[in-house]
Amino acid sequence: MSQKYSVAVIGLGAMGMGAAKSCIAAGLDTYGVDLNPNYLETLKAAGAKKVGTSAVDFAAELDAVLLLVVNANQVNAVLFGENGLAQHLKQGTVVMVSSTISAQDAKNISQKLTDLGLVMLDAPVSGGAAKAAQGEMTVMASGSSEAFEKLKPVLDAVAGKVYNIGEEVGLGATVKIIHQLLAGVHIAAGAEAMALAARAGIPLDLMYDVVTNAAGNSWMFENRMKHVVEGDYTPLSMVDIFVKDLGLVNDTAKSLRFPLHLASTAYSMFTEASNAGYGKEDDSAVIKIFSGIELPKKEGK
Amino acid sequence: MSQKYSVAVIGLGAMGMGAAKSCIAAGLDTYGVDLNPNYLETLKAAGAKKVGTSAVDFAAELDAVLLLVVNANQVNAVLFGENGLAQHLKQGTVVMVSSTISAQDAKNISQKLTDLGLVMLDAPVSGGAAKAAQGEMTVMASGSSEAFEKLKPVLDAVAGKVYNIGEEVGLGATVKIIHQLLAGVHIAAGAEAMALAARAGIPLDLMYDVVTNAAGNSWMFENRMKHVVEGDYTPLSMVDIFVKDLGLVNDTAKSLRFPLHLASTAYSMFTEASNAGYGKEDDSAVIKIFSGIELPKKEGK
Repeated sequence: MSQKYSVAVIGLGAMGMGAAKSCIAAGLDTYGVDLNPNYLETLKAAGAKKVGTSAVDFAAELDAVLLLVVNANQVNAVLFGENGLAQHLKQGTVVMVSSTISAQDAKNISQKLTDLGLVMLDAPVSGGAAKAAQGEMTVMASGSSEAFEKLKPVLDAVAGKVYNIGEEVGLGATVKIIHQLLAGVHIAAGAEAMALAARAGIPLDLMYDVVTNAAGNSWMFENRMKHVVEGDYTPLSMVDIFVKDLGLVNDTAKSLRFPLHLASTAYSMFTEASNAGYGKEDDSAVIKIFSGIELPKKEGK
Repeated sequence: MSQKYSVAVIGLGAMGMGAAKSCIAAGLDTYGVDLNPNYLETLKAAGAKKVGTSAVDFAAELDAVLLLVVNANQVNAVLFGENGLAQHLKQGTVVMVSSTISAQDAKNISQKLTDLGLVMLDAPVSGGAAKAAQGEMTVMASGSSEAFEKLKPVLDAVAGKVYNIGEEVGLGATVKIIHQLLAGVHIAAGAEAMALAARAGIPLDLMYDVVTNAAGNSWMFENRMKHVVEGDYTPLSMVDIFVKDLGLVNDTAKSLRFPLHLASTAYSMFTEASNAGYGKEDDSAVIKIFSGIELPKKEGK
């Protein structure tokens, strides 16, 4: 191509910022959109072509849009809300929807984009902020081969691994939601185990060390229970995200008429933590629902 | 030492066989005890000095005993039952109790050994059959420095990592039980997630591949859900082991007056699987409690 490939990343949180910087690093003309001016400045300084609180101003320049906003409401607002982006995009522009949303929402959004002559990839991501920063996210995607093809420069830039789940939009969303079942239950189980250790008088740093060297380990235990050991609940991903995601897990199970023994319990644990006032803390703060124990405090506090 | 160090490994299941072979590989005079003659033959062929259905015959030759039987009842039967081993051991012989048992049982057994002039290390293990075979088990131990010292040749032979949890017998047992909380919940959560994937029409090999490359992974998911993908429920560790171990988790929580949201649910799942007839199958067979799904069948069946 003589002309450069242009992509707008919308939603510059932990995952979106990493993805946008990975697009810049890959040499793509990268546009950044967020409501937070600090995030915009950060991405501008990192080499973004343009930044703004809306993508409408540079819609005509775009080959692709990558949405990493929080939920389906935000995806719909960005694309189809007042002065929404979708109607301003060139015919055939590809929209990669990477927020965690239900399969039904993914299908509805895809239908609306198709009606406007646009192409969607249902493409949730995983891997955490560190993987996003390295351009090594795991992408679990479904959609037409046209959608995959048009997004190749973006997928090459942001993903370590791309799963093609199938043609049907909604499959990607479902795989991500089942993944979140595991992620959420693992955090809640880590909290339950560490709270029990505290109750039994086992030093939590030692318990952490044992588990991370044994068969009881999980990615989430190793990553999140470190925050508990350090007494640091600065949010990387918040309790409220799992209230949302485990809510989607429950919705999915209900729509498939399927029992969820553990995930429904984990949902209650995160919801209780949120109602107790910890919704905006790191998701490891779900451990604070347990009374009668003393947890490590952050050094210097 | 001019004289060689002698150890008897009692209980030659997946973990015990690996530990015994590791002792042989480390040059220790190794004795093997089990009720299953096939296991005894295997260990004899691997270089054991003597094997038998009881350790009483060579009790006087031993510096150490390593117990890897299934539960506290078996530990008590071996040591203190009819013609029990404990009364035949030399004064000061060290007994390493590596079965998963309650802290209270560990304390009771320790008291009885002390009364006979013997020394106990409360030393549960983790790591699975593969780590045991490599002499790389994780040992979570509590006891006197004398007990640790006397067992050094055995610990060097069988363990990749030894945690010294403290002097008090029972702490090792408690750490192991909290570890089993995580292990059990992770298997049950893996089963719930894979069952939901089957219900949603997601190919299970693909779901497995996604999870093991993303933040939803756990040691147990990666190890056990492979059996589900392959449709092979040949037991490495049985459903009934987790009925026992999660039962110990619940007993421990009850004795500490502590709520267990997830582990009590996982206990019900394994108990249901056992009552439905899957108790002697691989613990991943807990997935069979979910109706209305089709699971992969073993190739050629």
